Amino acid sequence: MAEKTKMMVESWSFLDTPESNFRPLVVIELAKGTKEETIEWFTKRIVDKKADGGAQLLIKPLVTENGVENIYLVGASHLRLLLGAETVGLVKECTDNSMRTFTYSSRKTFKHFADDNHDFLTMAECQYIIKHELENLRAKNEKIIPGYPQAKLYPGKSIVRRLLTSGILVQIFPLHDREELKKLSHNWYGRVKVGYQPLDDIRCYFGETIALYFGFLEYFTFALIPMAVIGIPYYVFAWEDYDKYVMFATFNLLWSTVILEVWKRMCAILTYRWGTLLMKRQFEEPRPGFHGVLGINPVTGREEPVYSSIKRQLRIYLVSLPFVCLCLYFSLYVMMIYFDLEQWALDYHKENESNFSSLMLYVPSIIYAVVIEIMNRIYRYAAEFLTSWENHRLESSYQNHLILKVLVFNFLNCFASLFYIAFVLFDMKLLRQSLATLLITSQILNQFAESLLPYWLQKRYNRRMKKRMCSKKTDMDLSLAEQVNMEKEMGTYLGTFDDYLELFLQFGYVSLFSCVYPLAAVFAVLNNITEIYSDALKMCRVYKRPFAEPTASIGVWQLAFETMSVISVVTNCILIGMSPEVDALFPDSKMDLVLTVALVEHLLLAIKFIMAFVIPDKPREIQMKLAKLEFESLEALKQQQVNVKLPGAGQESHGFFR
Amino acid sequence: MAEKTKMMVESWSFLDTPESNFRPLVVIELAKGTKEETIEWFTKRIVDKKADGGAQLLIKPLVTENGVENIYLVGASHLRLLLGAETVGLVKECTDNSMRTFTYSSRKTFKHFADDNHDFLTMAECQYIIKHELENLRAKNEKIIPGYPQAKLYPGKSIVRRLLTSGILVQIFPLHDREELKKLSHNWYGRVKVGYQPLDDIRCYFGETIALYFGFLEYFTFALIPMAVIGIPYYVFAWEDYDKYVMFATFNLLWSTVILEVWKRMCAILTYRWGTLLMKRQFEEPRPGFHGVLGINPVTGREEPVYSSIKRQLRIYLVSLPFVCLCLYFSLYVMMIYFDLEQWALDYHKENESNFSSLMLYVPSIIYAVVIEIMNRIYRYAAEFLTSWENHRLESSYQNHLILKVLVFNFLNCFASLFYIAFVLFDMKLLRQSLATLLITSQILNQFAESLLPYWLQKRYNRRMKKRMCSKKTDMDLSLAEQVNMEKEMGTYLGTFDDYLELFLQFGYVSLFSCVYPLAAVFAVLNNITEIYSDALKMCRVYKRPFAEPTASIGVWQLAFETMSVISVVTNCILIGMSPEVDALFPDSKMDLVLTVALVEHLLLAIKFIMAFVIPDKPREIQMKLAKLEFESLEALKQQQVNVKLPGAGQESHGFFR
Repeated sequence: MAEKTKMMVESWSFLDTPESNFRPLVVIELAKGTKEETIEWFTKRIVDKKADGGAQLLIKPLVTENGVENIYLVGASHLRLLLGAETVGLVKECTDNSMRTFTYSSRKTFKHFADDNHDFLTMAECQYIIKHELENLRAKNEKIIPGYPQAKLYPGKSIVRRLLTSGILVQIFPLHDREELKKLSHNWYGRVKVGYQPLDDIRCYFGETIALYFGFLEYFTFALIPMAVIGIPYYVFAWEDYDKYVMFATFNLLWSTVILEVWKRMCAILTYRWGTLLMKRQFEEPRPGFHGVLGINPVTGREEPVYSSIKRQLRIYLVSLPFVCLCLYFSLYVMMIYFDLEQWALDYHKENESNFSSLMLYVPSIIYAVVIEIMNRIYRYAAEFLTSWENHRLESSYQNHLILKVLVFNFLNCFASLFYIAFVLFDMKLLRQSLATLLITSQILNQFAESLLPYWLQKRYNRRMKKRMCSKKTDMDLSLAEQVNMEKEMGTYLGTFDDYLELFLQFGYVSLFSCVYPLAAVFAVLNNITEIYSDALKMCRVYKRPFAEPTASIGVWQLAFETMSVISVVTNCILIGMSPEVDALFPDSKMDLVLTVALVEHLLLAIKFIMAFVIPDKPREIQMKLAKLEFESLEALKQQQVNVKLPGAGQESHGFFR
Repeated sequence: MAEKTKMMVESWSFLDTPESNFRPLVVIELAKGTKEETIEWFTKRIVDKKADGGAQLLIKPLVTENGVENIYLVGASHLRLLLGAETVGLVKECTDNSMRTFTYSSRKTFKHFADDNHDFLTMAECQYIIKHELENLRAKNEKIIPGYPQAKLYPGKSIVRRLLTSGILVQIFPLHDREELKKLSHNWYGRVKVGYQPLDDIRCYFGETIALYFGFLEYFTFALIPMAVIGIPYYVFAWEDYDKYVMFATFNLLWSTVILEVWKRMCAILTYRWGTLLMKRQFEEPRPGFHGVLGINPVTGREEPVYSSIKRQLRIYLVSLPFVCLCLYFSLYVMMIYFDLEQWALDYHKENESNFSSLMLYVPSIIYAVVIEIMNRIYRYAAEFLTSWENHRLESSYQNHLILKVLVFNFLNCFASLFYIAFVLFDMKLLRQSLATLLITSQILNQFAESLLPYWLQKRYNRRMKKRMCSKKTDMDLSLAEQVNMEKEMGTYLGTFDDYLELFLQFGYVSLFSCVYPLAAVFAVLNNITEIYSDALKMCRVYKRPFAEPTASIGVWQLAFETMSVISVVTNCILIGMSPEVDALFPDSKMDLVLTVALVEHLLLAIKFIMAFVIPDKPREIQMKLAKLEFESLEALKQQQVNVKLPGAGQESHGFFR
């Protein structure tokens, strides 16, 4: 043991010398008290050659003042990373400005490639490659994890996933690059400036999924500005004419279709530039939480846990579905309580007519907004638990079921009261007031709960940490050990789900009742501007660096936003039809009014679908580039063919004019 | 010249000996009086080796009693066909029952493959390969077609297409296989039997596009049977209760969604078995009619005619669009004349009240149905001319623009009068009568014009031909020369467009007003049963054999049918809402009625979209098989990687526990 520590310290000092080309990229934290043989076996497997079934990476223990702490740093040689880039199918830019899948043999044709240029792959890409290699480190003939007989293995099982589920591996996370981070955060939110976010830098540092979220947030904010600009005079001049509201709503409906279609094109441009548009989808392994009895996977032919699809369907339809319905019912019940409260406040105000009582008018709405937020959050945990219990084999299928559950509940929870006010109570004034209260309260709550609170907690923790370490150094001067120790205590960023959900609900507030409250777009724009800053702060300062995740689109959220925009056509048409001014246009026959509204609604929906069909999802330029790549690969295939000899074809030929 | 004819006759006699393995597959007919040097150059290019830029096929002149007639037979050696199958990316079944892309090097792994088994590729596949090779025979350095200075060539131009457009090449068509055809037609329509069509045999003989049409026709007929069965009692018992009609319409709407979704799955099963589901799309060359100034194609980098996209857009929006609108207006004008006629007939009947006058009641409808058919056919030529004048670069884009033009006009032409009767005149009795007349007249006209007339003409021609040849032989005993001469005079099958269009309009008659005329489904079923027979007859006896065309789906028609089913939800909901019985349910408020109808309509549409979303487009089994293939190719890629050595990785490694 003494010898071991000595060797470790030796290795550690070696790491600190500038000659060493070991660059720590990823941190592995093992549980305290992990057995010696387990560590030895695990690290051996990481270091082993690829041909022997290892990951062929480099690993070093981290030694702090307190000695060895079961924290390991993982890196890889430059060559290993290049071969890994080929395995994960990274797409990079070539010297002729086209995007191509990187292969080691064609490396010379890529822009900025040089054998000694270690910046060819960004740090986020290197970390993604290492994560991929670690996750694909598979058991050979081991039946158990050495030292832990209860942690079963079978040939082909991902070792890291088993270590994680059995609690031996506490976490794996990529290291921040303090210098890059400082540059990025300065460009991003560090200075007061008007301009676009540095999306390419964000992508280099955090990967495509997060960069695409910020790209969408920025795009969406810009897209809302015309609505906000048109909405302001309604407030300033207190316009109450319904014809003006009709114009605003019509503009809003067509505009929301256009922005969603144009986003697809923007997204294609961004992801083409980043290479993810061309990246081939990797085969999906079972998600970490998936369990079942050992069987044969019909696709891979490998031994792995299998779980009957019928059992899963039963769990979904007999447990999850009723539970969701129950929650929806409960949410409606709470809504009815809110209306009782509202009525009580109104009565109270009528009786007392004081300043206090007029303030009381807003209390039910604020309470309800807070309760909605709380219910959304509790339901979120329940939905996560249920979806995990449904035991989906794939992460993507898990995500889809989770998103569906959460979306339905959030939609009802946030908008049911507004629908009730609009289409049952027919109270437009109350609708406007509730809309404003709900929108503003939820925005304030979100900003606080999402970014400011964790930032404050983190800051306090850091201050305490530094005090304990008795160092007055700034972040930049921290030693590697101090940096790792600080980062491992930071919160984990759980993905873009909550951020997109917030935008989705905001889109609902802006578009569903846009003809009643044009000012919603103004609040949304203001919120989104601060949201960009607070989200950026959150990514850079509050959370551990997340692993980069390549993606080619915002996925199911595109569908969710489009569905919302279809629903908003229906709601806006009904609201306009119900307005007294439109009513007055049809003095004789209410029938004609309703029929006209229905006709207009169907026309608008038809226009929406035709527009969505006619506007191409990818700009012509990108289409051309993709076609060119496809053509080249077909040509290459044909060229291969020509080189195949046709033996004896000359003799067999009956050609006449030869 | 004398020597040449002698050589030809020699070669011809050689062809007739059973030792020869030259099997004539495709016929090329050159124009009478084509210059000697052109023929020599063209046949040399066909025979030349692939490496020299030729097609490496076999070609023989056809010699009849009248001497050489500029007709040539093209064939290929077995080996050449196998290599061609690899070029076109044919997918065949392996010995382990999986479908894989055929490659010559892996030929041994395919089912039924043997070096001497010349039936491994079906005749239709061989002919498709030869067509592909001929079309891809490209000019090298020739600036013109030898002998025809006006027929310009440039490097990479398809020679066959230039020969076709300059009229030197009259036609290329595949030969019938009399024996196979007899077997197929016996199984298909030759005997009276109840059962499925031999789709696999049809596919082997005519290719996937045509087999898929007959598959769809059969599937659609079976799918209509439940509607027809439910519809019969309405006629038999003269049910006039509206609640029964409501039930029928509701069933109809959900049923039509289900059948369209299930067809996608059926289609996936069929095309997986036929291998086309897995076939990669080939790069599309410009369509034969495309013209423009020589330029560089940005995708291929090759010199070829280019035509400005802006010019095309101008032609589409400034000429085609106004023309289509004009035609639509004209069609509506004709419709109004029809209603005047109808009114006149009604007045006449009221005045005279005779048998003749009651017969006269049907005359306007029949005249209108005939006029509609005639207008549809004239418009079809205009649409073809206009779309061709729009100068689309790709055949697929040409087809899409043509289909859109024709669909819109046919839809309006066929259904405008029904919409007018239903939603302007509110005359349900007239609607039912018009629907019946239109449906039955158009079906009779179609069957006559499409199959029976050409069949009769063809038969008369054949009889005359035989008389001229003074032979009393049956079809089976014809010599090759006689067969070719007869087939070259047969009509050319122009694709499945008209057949699908007919089904599309039929689907409209059945579903748009299904709650008014439940018997429509019965007529549709009866028509489709005879349609299968007459279409089969048409394919086997009337037309030249068409080239096989691989396809994975019915393409844009799926979308067309789905759109029709969405429209039919709207029309049926309105019809039901307008019925007096439903009216009676809301005695107090017409508003409530309209709102209820609108609500039900939106619910039905929502259910439709959710159903379309939830039902997977491919059955689980096919999904698994596709996933397995994808997994295998990914694994193969990885395996390739492991074999790459990591030079010096051992030395560079800082692994601690090694």
